[in-house]
Amino acid sequence: MVDTAQRSGSKKTPASKTPATTPSPSTAGGSSTSLDPSVDTGPIKIAGDPTAPRVDLPSLGRQLLGTWADIRIAAREVSARPDMQRIDGLSMEDHRARVFTQLQTLADNGHVHRAFPKELGGADDHGGNIAGFEELVIADPSLQIKGGVQWGLFGAAVLHLGTENHHKAWLPDIMSLKTPGAFAMTEIGHGSDVASIGTTATYDTETEEFVIHTPFTAAWKEFLGNAANDGIAAVVFAQLVTRGVNHGVHAFYVPIRDAAGEFLPGIGGEDDGLKGGLNGIDNGRLHFTNVRIPRENLLNRYGDVAVDGTYSSQIESPGRRFFTMLGTLVQGRVSLDGAATAASALGLTIAITYGGQRRQFTAGSDTDEEVILDYQRHQRRLLPRLATTYAQTFAHDEFLVKFDEVFSGKADTDDDRQDLETLAAALKPLSTWHALDTLQEAREACGGAGFMAANRLVGLRSDLDVYVTFEGDNNVLLQLVAKRLLTDYSKQFAKADAGALARYVVKQAADRAYHGTGLRRLTQTVADFGSTARSVEALRETNVQRELLTDRVETMIAEVAGELRAASKLPKHEAADLFNSHQNELIEAARAHGELLQWESFTRAVESTDHAGTKQVLTWLRDLFGLGLVEKHLAWYLIHGRLSAQRAQAITAYIDRLIARIRPHAQDLVDAFGYTQEHLRAPITSGIERERQEEAREYYRAQRASGTAPVAEKSARKK
Amino acid sequence: MVDTAQRSGSKKTPASKTPATTPSPSTAGGSSTSLDPSVDTGPIKIAGDPTAPRVDLPSLGRQLLGTWADIRIAAREVSARPDMQRIDGLSMEDHRARVFTQLQTLADNGHVHRAFPKELGGADDHGGNIAGFEELVIADPSLQIKGGVQWGLFGAAVLHLGTENHHKAWLPDIMSLKTPGAFAMTEIGHGSDVASIGTTATYDTETEEFVIHTPFTAAWKEFLGNAANDGIAAVVFAQLVTRGVNHGVHAFYVPIRDAAGEFLPGIGGEDDGLKGGLNGIDNGRLHFTNVRIPRENLLNRYGDVAVDGTYSSQIESPGRRFFTMLGTLVQGRVSLDGAATAASALGLTIAITYGGQRRQFTAGSDTDEEVILDYQRHQRRLLPRLATTYAQTFAHDEFLVKFDEVFSGKADTDDDRQDLETLAAALKPLSTWHALDTLQEAREACGGAGFMAANRLVGLRSDLDVYVTFEGDNNVLLQLVAKRLLTDYSKQFAKADAGALARYVVKQAADRAYHGTGLRRLTQTVADFGSTARSVEALRETNVQRELLTDRVETMIAEVAGELRAASKLPKHEAADLFNSHQNELIEAARAHGELLQWESFTRAVESTDHAGTKQVLTWLRDLFGLGLVEKHLAWYLIHGRLSAQRAQAITAYIDRLIARIRPHAQDLVDAFGYTQEHLRAPITSGIERERQEEAREYYRAQRASGTAPVAEKSARKK
Repeated sequence: MVDTAQRSGSKKTPASKTPATTPSPSTAGGSSTSLDPSVDTGPIKIAGDPTAPRVDLPSLGRQLLGTWADIRIAAREVSARPDMQRIDGLSMEDHRARVFTQLQTLADNGHVHRAFPKELGGADDHGGNIAGFEELVIADPSLQIKGGVQWGLFGAAVLHLGTENHHKAWLPDIMSLKTPGAFAMTEIGHGSDVASIGTTATYDTETEEFVIHTPFTAAWKEFLGNAANDGIAAVVFAQLVTRGVNHGVHAFYVPIRDAAGEFLPGIGGEDDGLKGGLNGIDNGRLHFTNVRIPRENLLNRYGDVAVDGTYSSQIESPGRRFFTMLGTLVQGRVSLDGAATAASALGLTIAITYGGQRRQFTAGSDTDEEVILDYQRHQRRLLPRLATTYAQTFAHDEFLVKFDEVFSGKADTDDDRQDLETLAAALKPLSTWHALDTLQEAREACGGAGFMAANRLVGLRSDLDVYVTFEGDNNVLLQLVAKRLLTDYSKQFAKADAGALARYVVKQAADRAYHGTGLRRLTQTVADFGSTARSVEALRETNVQRELLTDRVETMIAEVAGELRAASKLPKHEAADLFNSHQNELIEAARAHGELLQWESFTRAVESTDHAGTKQVLTWLRDLFGLGLVEKHLAWYLIHGRLSAQRAQAITAYIDRLIARIRPHAQDLVDAFGYTQEHLRAPITSGIERERQEEAREYYRAQRASGTAPVAEKSARKK
Repeated sequence: MVDTAQRSGSKKTPASKTPATTPSPSTAGGSSTSLDPSVDTGPIKIAGDPTAPRVDLPSLGRQLLGTWADIRIAAREVSARPDMQRIDGLSMEDHRARVFTQLQTLADNGHVHRAFPKELGGADDHGGNIAGFEELVIADPSLQIKGGVQWGLFGAAVLHLGTENHHKAWLPDIMSLKTPGAFAMTEIGHGSDVASIGTTATYDTETEEFVIHTPFTAAWKEFLGNAANDGIAAVVFAQLVTRGVNHGVHAFYVPIRDAAGEFLPGIGGEDDGLKGGLNGIDNGRLHFTNVRIPRENLLNRYGDVAVDGTYSSQIESPGRRFFTMLGTLVQGRVSLDGAATAASALGLTIAITYGGQRRQFTAGSDTDEEVILDYQRHQRRLLPRLATTYAQTFAHDEFLVKFDEVFSGKADTDDDRQDLETLAAALKPLSTWHALDTLQEAREACGGAGFMAANRLVGLRSDLDVYVTFEGDNNVLLQLVAKRLLTDYSKQFAKADAGALARYVVKQAADRAYHGTGLRRLTQTVADFGSTARSVEALRETNVQRELLTDRVETMIAEVAGELRAASKLPKHEAADLFNSHQNELIEAARAHGELLQWESFTRAVESTDHAGTKQVLTWLRDLFGLGLVEKHLAWYLIHGRLSAQRAQAITAYIDRLIARIRPHAQDLVDAFGYTQEHLRAPITSGIERERQEEAREYYRAQRASGTAPVAEKSARKK
């Protein structure tokens, strides 16, 4: 929570556009009043109205912290420490050095060891580990990501792809940061398409060694954190070749630097240099010239090579083996989803707090200027993004629970793992794009002050930029989701004759049973309510919103599936062309699916809220999110006859009303995220803006009182 | 143009998704072929098709350079000089020092003097001056903006607000950079609302001096380039008070530092420190404690104070006087529009060139990977933005011509000035937002490589970030446009009875005569074609696109005007509330107006194109821009009955076809912008990507030939 002066100050700023000096019961958008706060069709509530619902900050704050609240609170204490925080304007070298020191602090206090085995000093706590990591984004995204490289990628690869001997041999020094390491998967030539990397690990039966080799420039390992300076080892992904057979991509533990920090023989590399952000991390390139490592350095959980060169694996299909290995590293996507959501919340806390204090232009008064958050446009810019950030916060917690169930072994079937990966591929793109969009809008909403590094927004945005393309390019991830949706869809019809599928397409998703990916397994739980919403009133109903959002995903997939039916009979390149000609639609369908998942999490959160005032305000916010999605895709609903023109137009008007209704609660809703001034660290949210205004007002007041105030030319002329 | 190796290389990459190693006449989106390139309803043309239209690069390049082509070419030569270019990773201090040195170079070679009077060594060339400035964004946006501060704001204020004695006294040293200066308008408390600034300039009849004073902290001058270090003088905007009357904001020439660089008595300030970009500029704050300057330091072109304190002005209305003074400084917005468009063009040149060379995933082949620009989604991400950039390039040139006519005195009525300002307020927001959007999409389209500072995109984006809020916050500017549209609209009905206006609203823009702001003075030139487009074919017709776009602006304004009619009868604060409740719609209407202006410029450019192939490709690109606008606002067209559901759906399908048709010309279309490797300076566009692929292919070819290639596990098992 922000300090008391601010909080009480914010309460002085009602939704009403009436200047603070002349309080009035009039409302911003209507003139009648409602006595029943549960009826939200009434006029906009104002802060001075005793019947208006109020958010209960402590319980809402607790709800937002989610399943691992205590760990998040502890992590925020770490992030509030000045020595753990980013200092703007450091040189790349100094920033890197600072982050490395901070990393050592995290290692020393055990903050980053929760996912490791208990017997090695960890806690076998996978969900809690990610929750704690995510909060580090508040201190410095470079710290979050560099920690992610060391323990979430390099260390996690040894943990999940290695076996007991590897754990004993390497994890202790990885945990303590005695062995900083790189995660050498991506190559210059292959990022998204990991299966096609060029680096080889060829088994030499004579010496019982693997020979790690970079056959051409495009196979240099690229963009690796810890590679430019700090890494003394790396987990290297390479095509495993033994007895003349390529068994596909496997991971190998490879020492890369000696005690003096020099590359070991056969290893070379370059510094990636300055990046658009995250400059506290020493990204770099690595290449290998016939580097020999012991056979035992193969991380052999999913595939092994015997002394004589015989390959074995408990997973027969090379494709499934590959995806199983990669799937163990899904936590990167999980943590990006959470960190991006936290950064959005932080940015909105800054912009909404400032927007509630900053004044500009006199519109309805001759002397007092308007609070900028009382301008409709300003509300339209910030409040829908706040609604999305709430949706993501709730969706992320459920996602993290799912992740924890899989990684703790509580629910760890193949289906669970596939659902988790699909969920990650659906949510990470939405939340990371949302963070960039929100941080940018927040920065613009703060004007020139938003551009000053001291006010945090530009730095956070620069650092988070790469979140949308690393750990899976967002567009590539959404395409994976779309393919999963298509597969689920076709499974529904696997036993049906060809005609059944065609009829399904014609009916356009009258059956809604197939849509079972991720958080959601709906089977006819949705009441059928016809092809159009009956009225705007109906749009406020949870089931109507669910129906509209679900229907769109299903219909989009069904339509594309119908178009793609011909593909199975075409030559490969023509089939690829056909698929490609629907790529954009497929990605849009995947996005709609992700949005639906977020909406459902938000809805469950509303349903589990006890406090009546909080529940009312959260319902408005959920409606703003849900109807905002419908408004965003309004053309689709019109074209497909799901909404009439009149009702479609009414949605925008209703959203305007919702926004005005939420406005008085805006400060509460961001305060509930629970960030203190130590987390915000933005001078514009410190209350200084309000102090300056008071000083100016006092000056003019005194001038008027003393009779020395100059007369305006216009008034002088009239006399 | 990029180097020959690349150009010829790009021609090897046809639109077809067929791998380069197995050329085939099949097309990406159809199988029949058309022999008549003028009929664009046919299939997608491929580069190998001799009947396909081709762009004529030299003439298109010339057309894009526009009215001041020679000056732009010369300015690009300056921008290609290594000593004039940005070096990434410099400390703020070093970057500032470098930019100051570069500024001196510009002063020494006269590059920045074109707008100044001939008798002082200038050229009285206002349009050419801006054209030359804009191109500096290629070298370093800090250089462009720091030059803009010195000569476009500080110097231009002395030129346009001062009179002959001021010109003689100060302009020579301003031109030579002997007097670096700040433009001290914005205050901490007032940015967009300049009329409300707090700094006072009180005339003292005794000493015949003005006393410049900062009465409170919120009145500190803020975000001023040249203020933190380099400025030794400033043009300070302050409320002019004489004989007890406040005559409103005027500009004063105030020395601020002595020869040693220390603040003069009564003057203080602070450094703004690190910003989100433009760190080559020393932005800072200034404050004044009873600083006395001679009476003659008032820049007195529009208002003067006699020795005895009598105020006089040739402009009676204080409001009009204020807007006239501010209007002389419109060139800042003009140059931002041009520079933002240039940066978009540069970003797209990088991303499209790389997208045409980079390969990832094998889709339609077992061995050869797809060029990423052949993926539909990739095309959807980049090509519509290319179309918008073309529209903006043409619109900017017309805008600059209009600016030149006003400032040269060729067409300098009050109406001309107002039109120019409305045009600036409409175009600058669209192009600056477009630049951020485009540079971000370009960076994401280049993946991790796009995040590397060396590839330019992240740096350009950071620097251009503030363009959307300085020289007029984009949202505030669009609101100004909307107010102008409302005023024009009500003028149409000034003599009509009240019923006429109501009927107009009901009819919803059946009359289209009012829409006369800016570039456009349409009076019934548009053929009426009914309330919906007859078919998708019709959508390709220029008049149909014009009608759809025009109709939307007019109807939106008419609707809001109808809603606001009641305002004149309401108390001031209620009227303000009513206006506020339509603020978002108004700003959207202003945006639609700006988009229409861009579309019309693009259409005029197409019409003036002689070369048949170029004209054909530009027509497709214009259609993509126009129909893209319709698609973006499709819900509006559906709700208002302008398009049927079927036709609306067909628009998206047609856009997909247009994009596939433009794809083979993408490299030509960016090459036509005319940037060389010296301007691009992005390793990923140097051809290195293609070289690396060739090296990898050669490796695998040799391996296969030698018989040493390992067998894939799957194939091995089959045997």
